[in-house]
Amino acid sequence: MELQSLPAGLATLADHERHARATLDAAAWDYLCGAAGDGLTARHNRAAWDAWTLLPRVLAPLAGLHTRTELLGRTLACPLLVAPLAHQRLAHADAELGTAMAAAAQEAGMVLSMQASTPLEAVADAVRSDAGRGPLWFQLYWLADRGLLRAVIERARAAGYEALVLTVDAPVRTGFRLPAGMATPNAPATSGDSSLADLCATAPTWRELEWLCAHAPLPVVVKGVLHPDDARAAQASGAAALVVSNHGGRTLDGAPATATMLPRIADAVGGALPLLADGGIRRGTDVLKAISLGARAVLVGRPAVWGLANAGALGVAHVLRLLRDELELAMALCGCTDLSSPPTCERTS
Amino acid sequence: MELQSLPAGLATLADHERHARATLDAAAWDYLCGAAGDGLTARHNRAAWDAWTLLPRVLAPLAGLHTRTELLGRTLACPLLVAPLAHQRLAHADAELGTAMAAAAQEAGMVLSMQASTPLEAVADAVRSDAGRGPLWFQLYWLADRGLLRAVIERARAAGYEALVLTVDAPVRTGFRLPAGMATPNAPATSGDSSLADLCATAPTWRELEWLCAHAPLPVVVKGVLHPDDARAAQASGAAALVVSNHGGRTLDGAPATATMLPRIADAVGGALPLLADGGIRRGTDVLKAISLGARAVLVGRPAVWGLANAGALGVAHVLRLLRDELELAMALCGCTDLSSPPTCERTS
Amino acid sequence: MELQSLPAGLATLADHERHARATLDAAAWDYLCGAAGDGLTARHNRAAWDAWTLLPRVLAPLAGLHTRTELLGRTLACPLLVAPLAHQRLAHADAELGTAMAAAAQEAGMVLSMQASTPLEAVADAVRSDAGRGPLWFQLYWLADRGLLRAVIERARAAGYEALVLTVDAPVRTGFRLPAGMATPNAPATSGDSSLADLCATAPTWRELEWLCAHAPLPVVVKGVLHPDDARAAQASGAAALVVSNHGGRTLDGAPATATMLPRIADAVGGALPLLADGGIRRGTDVLKAISLGARAVLVGRPAVWGLANAGALGVAHVLRLLRDELELAMALCGCTDLSSPPTCERTS
Amino acid sequence: MELQSLPAGLATLADHERHARATLDAAAWDYLCGAAGDGLTARHNRAAWDAWTLLPRVLAPLAGLHTRTELLGRTLACPLLVAPLAHQRLAHADAELGTAMAAAAQEAGMVLSMQASTPLEAVADAVRSDAGRGPLWFQLYWLADRGLLRAVIERARAAGYEALVLTVDAPVRTGFRLPAGMATPNAPATSGDSSLADLCATAPTWRELEWLCAHAPLPVVVKGVLHPDDARAAQASGAAALVVSNHGGRTLDGAPATATMLPRIADAVGGALPLLADGGIRRGTDVLKAISLGARAVLVGRPAVWGLANAGALGVAHVLRLLRDELELAMALCGCTDLSSPPTCERTS
Repeated sequence: MELQSLPAGLATLADHERHARATLDAAAWDYLCGAAGDGLTARHNRAAWDAWTLLPRVLAPLAGLHTRTELLGRTLACPLLVAPLAHQRLAHADAELGTAMAAAAQEAGMVLSMQASTPLEAVADAVRSDAGRGPLWFQLYWLADRGLLRAVIERARAAGYEALVLTVDAPVRTGFRLPAGMATPNAPATSGDSSLADLCATAPTWRELEWLCAHAPLPVVVKGVLHPDDARAAQASGAAALVVSNHGGRTLDGAPATATMLPRIADAVGGALPLLADGGIRRGTDVLKAISLGARAVLVGRPAVWGLANAGALGVAHVLRLLRDELELAMALCGCTDLSSPPTCERTS
Repeated sequence: MELQSLPAGLATLADHERHARATLDAAAWDYLCGAAGDGLTARHNRAAWDAWTLLPRVLAPLAGLHTRTELLGRTLACPLLVAPLAHQRLAHADAELGTAMAAAAQEAGMVLSMQASTPLEAVADAVRSDAGRGPLWFQLYWLADRGLLRAVIERARAAGYEALVLTVDAPVRTGFRLPAGMATPNAPATSGDSSLADLCATAPTWRELEWLCAHAPLPVVVKGVLHPDDARAAQASGAAALVVSNHGGRTLDGAPATATMLPRIADAVGGALPLLADGGIRRGTDVLKAISLGARAVLVGRPAVWGLANAGALGVAHVLRLLRDELELAMALCGCTDLSSPPTCERTS
Repeated sequence: MELQSLPAGLATLADHERHARATLDAAAWDYLCGAAGDGLTARHNRAAWDAWTLLPRVLAPLAGLHTRTELLGRTLACPLLVAPLAHQRLAHADAELGTAMAAAAQEAGMVLSMQASTPLEAVADAVRSDAGRGPLWFQLYWLADRGLLRAVIERARAAGYEALVLTVDAPVRTGFRLPAGMATPNAPATSGDSSLADLCATAPTWRELEWLCAHAPLPVVVKGVLHPDDARAAQASGAAALVVSNHGGRTLDGAPATATMLPRIADAVGGALPLLADGGIRRGTDVLKAISLGARAVLVGRPAVWGLANAGALGVAHVLRLLRDELELAMALCGCTDLSSPPTCERTS
Repeated sequence: MELQSLPAGLATLADHERHARATLDAAAWDYLCGAAGDGLTARHNRAAWDAWTLLPRVLAPLAGLHTRTELLGRTLACPLLVAPLAHQRLAHADAELGTAMAAAAQEAGMVLSMQASTPLEAVADAVRSDAGRGPLWFQLYWLADRGLLRAVIERARAAGYEALVLTVDAPVRTGFRLPAGMATPNAPATSGDSSLADLCATAPTWRELEWLCAHAPLPVVVKGVLHPDDARAAQASGAAALVVSNHGGRTLDGAPATATMLPRIADAVGGALPLLADGGIRRGTDVLKAISLGARAVLVGRPAVWGLANAGALGVAHVLRLLRDELELAMALCGCTDLSSPPTCERTS
């Protein structure tokens, strides 16, 4: 992979978004960065982070400020992961390899989509030797054929993935016709050809989650929980962590914002189950708000795509670097040196 | 009726609206799709559905998902009816015949307006043999001349209409001058020539509703209730069902949204009286929110006009198909397989 | 006065506003129709009426619907008065004579400004013989020279004015340089030449109000009250009625809307003191909301200026006619036949 | 200093803002008038003042109305100070000398920035003989080198500054590259070259504040407090007064508005510690709201820069004059003659 130089004028994730929209063709933009329905939930996600305010403390000792956090038995240098994003080759030839190398370079984690355009082994190989990298997880959609499912899980385990992320908020999905020459080498591509009834008949249930948690050789992270009762049920089923998520507003339009549900879920499962969150994270202050509201770490999706589209691996690294820097600055300005003691987050604008 | 082909690019009801606005002449658009006053209530209607969020459940078994519901003693394949819409010939030559056939084809119900441009018998004949069709109801404005009223009711009964829908939220109405060649073959056309005092003197009261419920050969659905006390009074007067409605914001501008009043009315009449709702339903998620807030089914008005204007019967069918498909998808994404156990609806964006 | 014909296309007060803005020169528009500061309070006024919703009742008997109300010992055919508006000659040559004749023709009341461009006697003469007219009141700013004050009050009494309206929300006022040839024949013109300290030194207090109520030969209406405690104090001082007003947002920018304070003041003074309200009334539904929130009648200011600018007396009459017609229609749609039993007004959009 | 004439058409601070934006080059505008991040907090600041309404009282005696207030043992003619603003030479050659002379002429106070482009002694000399001037304070950023810190404090004391203002809400700051020829003669310029870790290591803590309060020869005002607990801690550390501030939205984007936190801090420290506030003050009504919510005086930052850019000293004086006049008028319109008995401030629009 040849490193591409960064276009000029990219100082914020919003800059990356504008540039990527002008760079990607419309169909790729719509698929990679679009939202469901009228975009209500995608807008809720953004507005809800902005509606929270951080109440800074002054004159606190700041020496030793760091962004480390603990998750699934290991230390993360910073509480950032790249969300599972299908078909990254649509954005840039660097694709998942570029994203993974950028995440590793920025000490962020990476969740590889089952619908990735790159073999999972190649992705793992690319970052295996990076001692400082964040966690490498593999995302699953449930496969009715358990043989196929066991096979891909075994491949992920063998390649060094540290956890499985089961997406549960998209039991039925709209298909997307891949351009010629693209493939999904880790699993059968999601197809729009099945009827809703067929998809419903094979959608996973709590029983499948229990089976997976009991039999998988890796911890299972459940992604896509919004209801506190479901959070409790996931915990009871053996989940190792949850991602509070509405799929970035790409599935059910009209679902509440993750920033709204996160504290309610934190109340429901207390500190017993580590929580992550995604959806609309665009600033270091958003990351700090998420931590303050109960998350251990956050996932960013579209911003990684923007970076990838703008400059391949270097673009993703830049996006993650901006978030890290902004997070550190926000912590300093809030008088926070350790994310386990975050500042107060209120709805008082 | 010759089936017209569907214009390209219609994937949502909003697309239908844009296309219909460009298709209809301004006077027809204003009459068919306009709102009263400053359009406050019409906007309230839309905003109020958007203000509710659906709280999805995950990993629920989805097999057997269906949209069936019970209403007035029979099963509806889906909880959709076309609202009573006057003078549909203004939108398209297919007029009420086209709308009725489209509704039947989509297993939706149809409420024929007393001010329809097509004889009620012809509409009933067109769908009589369709076993899967939804309910066929006939809408009434009260007529001071009870002989005329009895006559039209008897025509409706004889033609096979299953219920009478008495509109009560427009005791006085602004007249509309029909273009040459249009008629209202089911009843005298509403005229703008009467004084307000005359209209007030002949407006129906609870006494007239009681009489109607007691003497009509069909169940009476009361359309246009917003106040919980009126809902209770309608029940006491013998109404078989209510439509929570503000006439789509076309009568009293400044009335609250139906999505706001629906749960209060549901609280007032409990499960004792089936409720329907209309006003601003544009998405399958809106239908699911209405069901969650206490409605048994919903009526759609302007969207049917848009479809009719865009492609006659085929356009109406397309509008209804979009709503059905969106409703089913929303149910699946909410973990809801049966509308009698709808998801939670909250005001937490 | 020669009746001018009405420009085409004026179907609402908003139409009148647009037309008047295009008709008046900018300086006259700013003086007559402007707002203080950043226009916050002027916008609050409008938004607050819109924020209230009317909860209609259906199937109530509507026969005999009327807009009559009682105020200061006499019956008003409708609850509308033209607010005191200075220098109406700036808007049209018909000036206050035209406004008064229009109000009388529409059975509305008229409050003549002390800063009127027409002698008060001429205004009274113009409407004296009109049996159906609404009340004719005379507005006062306090004059430090009690001789001058007594003189103008005596002129008003002798000419047949029925009440004095003391404006109390503008103890200090920004001056306005009258164009050449304009005068204020009823009292010394307000001047911008006095210092704030001088104005403060001579501003009226509760003591002056008590004196006025005790000695004036006419009932005293206090205009410009927003605080419930001031409403109680005005009652204790002998006021015959109050106008809940913030001077249309033309004095203190940042004061709350009258639609917000009206119900609080109604709570404070109960039914003991008749209340009027003004500020942002643009629709018959606004009038009905004001009545529902505790007002006996409303004043309209800028809309009368718009009508005057657009077509002199005929324009004012048209504005008042629109409001009356809209009020009657709103009453019918709310199931309200008598303003002493208004519909419920809620903040539930 | 030669007095420049005032450009035409400047009647409000908003006019000054528009004119200054057109006058300053973009880099100077961004540095002097910009906001952090997405400008959320800068917008919160403005919106929060507007969201409060003033509830005027009528017919109160207004004679003797004045804007005097007591602060740190002396009387201020009006409750206005110019906030510490770095590098004022970027806006105009009059720079801090012009600002100080304008403030003195308008009986307002002045806080000289440690990052000023003018020696502190020259600023003090320029206003020393002005008997009516407001307080002259010197702003400090903490300097790790206590020798340097003591030296600048001693210079400030010797020159006649009356208090030290320690800024605590910007422990780390983004650097700004000064144009050639500009200097910071009072202290080392803030540089963007230090790492965040270095800045954190030397940021002041409560211990440093305690030391400063104990050893400084002048009262210490702590600027940048938003959390009620920090207000209590500052009081316990020996602070003489607090400025409730979020640095005009220039540090932590996402912090709450000062107008939101001010009353909570007033509740926390009661009358025991005088409070000042800044951030978004643009109108005399904003000043009155701040006083009503618990502030003894307010600071204005950007508006002084606008005035300076528009017309040097005369522009600053004009900005302050507008605020004073608007404050007096607002007091009169609220029936308030003395800021120790301010009007009621509510969130009822």
